[in-house]
Amino acid sequence: MDPTGIARIALVTDFGPGLYVGQMRARLSALVPHVPVIDLVQDLPPFRPDLGAYLLPALVRDMPRGTLYLCVVDPGVGGERAGLLVESDGDWLLGPDNGLLSRVAHRGREVQAYRIGWQPKDLSASFHGRDWFAPAAARLCLGEHLGLTALDRCALVGADWSDDLPAVVYVDRYGNLMCGLLAGTLPGGAQTRIRAAGHVLRRARTFCDVPPGEPFWYENALGLVEIAVNQGRADRLLGLAPGDSIAWIPQGDAEMAHV
Amino acid sequence: MDPTGIARIALVTDFGPGLYVGQMRARLSALVPHVPVIDLVQDLPPFRPDLGAYLLPALVRDMPRGTLYLCVVDPGVGGERAGLLVESDGDWLLGPDNGLLSRVAHRGREVQAYRIGWQPKDLSASFHGRDWFAPAAARLCLGEHLGLTALDRCALVGADWSDDLPAVVYVDRYGNLMCGLLAGTLPGGAQTRIRAAGHVLRRARTFCDVPPGEPFWYENALGLVEIAVNQGRADRLLGLAPGDSIAWIPQGDAEMAHV
Amino acid sequence: MDPTGIARIALVTDFGPGLYVGQMRARLSALVPHVPVIDLVQDLPPFRPDLGAYLLPALVRDMPRGTLYLCVVDPGVGGERAGLLVESDGDWLLGPDNGLLSRVAHRGREVQAYRIGWQPKDLSASFHGRDWFAPAAARLCLGEHLGLTALDRCALVGADWSDDLPAVVYVDRYGNLMCGLLAGTLPGGAQTRIRAAGHVLRRARTFCDVPPGEPFWYENALGLVEIAVNQGRADRLLGLAPGDSIAWIPQGDAEMAHV
Repeated sequence: MDPTGIARIALVTDFGPGLYVGQMRARLSALVPHVPVIDLVQDLPPFRPDLGAYLLPALVRDMPRGTLYLCVVDPGVGGERAGLLVESDGDWLLGPDNGLLSRVAHRGREVQAYRIGWQPKDLSASFHGRDWFAPAAARLCLGEHLGLTALDRCALVGADWSDDLPAVVYVDRYGNLMCGLLAGTLPGGAQTRIRAAGHVLRRARTFCDVPPGEPFWYENALGLVEIAVNQGRADRLLGLAPGDSIAWIPQGDAEMAHV
Repeated sequence: MDPTGIARIALVTDFGPGLYVGQMRARLSALVPHVPVIDLVQDLPPFRPDLGAYLLPALVRDMPRGTLYLCVVDPGVGGERAGLLVESDGDWLLGPDNGLLSRVAHRGREVQAYRIGWQPKDLSASFHGRDWFAPAAARLCLGEHLGLTALDRCALVGADWSDDLPAVVYVDRYGNLMCGLLAGTLPGGAQTRIRAAGHVLRRARTFCDVPPGEPFWYENALGLVEIAVNQGRADRLLGLAPGDSIAWIPQGDAEMAHV
Repeated sequence: MDPTGIARIALVTDFGPGLYVGQMRARLSALVPHVPVIDLVQDLPPFRPDLGAYLLPALVRDMPRGTLYLCVVDPGVGGERAGLLVESDGDWLLGPDNGLLSRVAHRGREVQAYRIGWQPKDLSASFHGRDWFAPAAARLCLGEHLGLTALDRCALVGADWSDDLPAVVYVDRYGNLMCGLLAGTLPGGAQTRIRAAGHVLRRARTFCDVPPGEPFWYENALGLVEIAVNQGRADRLLGLAPGDSIAWIPQGDAEMAHV
């Protein structure tokens, strides 16, 4: 795919609402003013590429093609971890080699991964999102040299992680708990129940099919298992946070939770 | 009005800072890349179209004309509630028929409401903001078919709601309490007092006319009654949150609070 | 410098994630639709221009030139404080004369400050960011009259403030504590220690050079002294918040903290 046809850059970080995203945007605005930049998600669980990794393919699934995802959840910044570029089914992803991009790389049909050799001369020790990855994204859009070395996707950090992660990977504003499980491939199908914090939850189609206050699970708009409470907060009711484990129980197998 | 002249789309939601707004923006970016999109407000009280309804006309009042408001506070998503388009005094509003748009429709001078018949083929059960309302907004900008059915504005959900709502409808970052009352039409005028959480509050022009730490009310920059504390947090001092009731006391009528 | 060459407007406020920034953006979108607008930082410590003043030059340092900073931390809104325009080394800054712009004006090499005489006819008492400063920024971009009066930079509010502020000026999402001290000019250099909340902290290069859980200080990506904990929250561990004092201890001078 020709990177100079990138239609937009989507920012995916754990930076929160503060001053880091704006600095990345300013850098991009100066280097590639013609490329639209979208705040896709800035509140990934902090320091946890192992959780964000399972959210990312679900986020990408329903996005328009031709997007460059600039992904920064980077607790190892300033250390030895490499920078990656992944081309996957018509999209590009750029970020640290710490597992964050591993699930997209693993699940894609046509995937090519690269290590990024190019680095700028001025590079802070703690903000590679602004100083390295944002200008690298701009260079990709402009078709400029990035010193790429092709990598087998099996060589990426996180290549050996499990296909699904039976754990909470993201909590939204309403307290809904997104899990690292694809709802469409659970063995028990629609009859599958989810065990979470001592509760056994049945599946529903959506919120308004469940009485207010009752916890349930459903296939959310990203295709993930999501634990929710109609007009309530699942995070508070169940006492769960990103990283906490859940389990799934196939149909007719009420006694045993598969983790 | 010709919708293809829409100058900007303003997003009005209760989605918070997470990953929902970015997905709507990405959808809009793919469909109408030439239309600017503005995050007008994303932290409306969650699940409460009955509160947001009283903030919306005040927000619209001072905005530039030619704006399409894409409004999503949608606890009934996935159920039977309809989708609405409202044309009001040179602006467009698009969102669920759950009362959220009812006050703008009621107060406008030249208003026409429509039910939206068009729906996309792929529609998640829980994220109509991304899957239905955002592409519908794009179709409106492009002058494409939306399957509109004209409605009398009296047929909208919320058409029978009271003109004013003596309650907190929004809390800003500083803890100021915006109320569903237009300051300019209070019967007692500038002498009106507000009763809130056991306090009787006098009117001031603005913050710096009141000693630090003292609660007061004033006409805020949206034209609403706002309860505030100079260099303090009214929400904490008074223990009030969105949905909590207040009352107004006209001049010379100190004993009786009108609710 | 020709203001009509302004490449972008960067918003710098204490407004938080609510509805104020969107209203400013909408106003700018109507007046100067061709100028990109960037949310640089919206969560400066509320009501504290005296703290934001020490963050602002650090933020500006690594930004692309040709930026107009629209800066609103404005507890005196509606009172007598003036509006300022500062031209500093190829950038423009616009905001209230309450000290917020004083450190940029003081540290710049080529600096010219002006009082803004122009005001719009309709001006709310409480939201000059939307009603005065945003349209003034648009007028500057368009080369329109602002009624400017040149000021000596020594006449600005805050001109007599200390060069450095040994205090926390900003807390990021991770709980890191940015301080109003330039790391590069501390007398003790790399050996300098920081005394904060009863702890004496040594300098490190970056996070991954320190064991998890241990507090340290480092030169952050803005050039400021930042107190941090690897994979932990310094704000909670030390109990510090914006405005709280710290002290620095030069090499070999362990007994005495310079404030």
